[in-house]
Amino acid sequence: MEEQIDLVGKAFVDHYYHLFDNDRPALSSLYQPSSMLTFEGQKIQGVEDITAKLNQLPFDQCRHVVSTIDSQPSSFTGGIVVFVSGSLQLPGEEHHLRFSQMFHLIPVPQGNFFVQNDMFRLNYG
Amino acid sequence: MEEQIDLVGKAFVDHYYHLFDNDRPALSSLYQPSSMLTFEGQKIQGVEDITAKLNQLPFDQCRHVVSTIDSQPSSFTGGIVVFVSGSLQLPGEEHHLRFSQMFHLIPVPQGNFFVQNDMFRLNYG
Repeated sequence: MEEQIDLVGKAFVDHYYHLFDNDRPALSSLYQPSSMLTFEGQKIQGVEDITAKLNQLPFDQCRHVVSTIDSQPSSFTGGIVVFVSGSLQLPGEEHHLRFSQMFHLIPVPQGNFFVQNDMFRLNYG
Repeated sequence: MEEQIDLVGKAFVDHYYHLFDNDRPALSSLYQPSSMLTFEGQKIQGVEDITAKLNQLPFDQCRHVVSTIDSQPSSFTGGIVVFVSGSLQLPGEEHHLRFSQMFHLIPVPQGNFFVQNDMFRLNYG
């Protein structure tokens, strides 16, 4: 069971950053009206506002390189909390930006997950 | 409501690191048998094993300095997810260790919370 959680968490993270880096508008498929994003301290709720925020970030191209993924079952039946660290590479930037991000994934009847909670922070210093 | 969540998250974080830095064995009061800790990738479950891990870390004294706290309501009624970044200062160490940590807090009938999910990572590089 523990291994299954890790596999699901990793598959989600791979999928999420693949979409982010290659087809960012498609991230809307991973959120629902109840979803919450806190991006660098800014709170945003719902598919439309979250998608708008992610698509209006001040860079068009980026690449997420994941360093660590930790996953645990959440108290919600079938839910998973995923905790990621990594670096964000922007074109023309010599230095990578370290980031941490957590996701709370809730299962949907079709068998996959949506993101209920999403919190993102750059790690400075 | 949003402000209330932030206040509760901040109060919990202040309390947690105060205990960690000043009375680490007392952290056991914040966990329950179902609690899960992933510490630098190592998975630990239950009050006793989590408390043992935290008390056997290879430093006796430390000071957590919190940089950011983000909180959101979780899908569990009354639950909160809290996402922290900060630095860990060890005696005799010139450089601080940057860390990120997430907590999933579940309310108990007495009116406070226990930690269901706890994931901690140092941020290298």
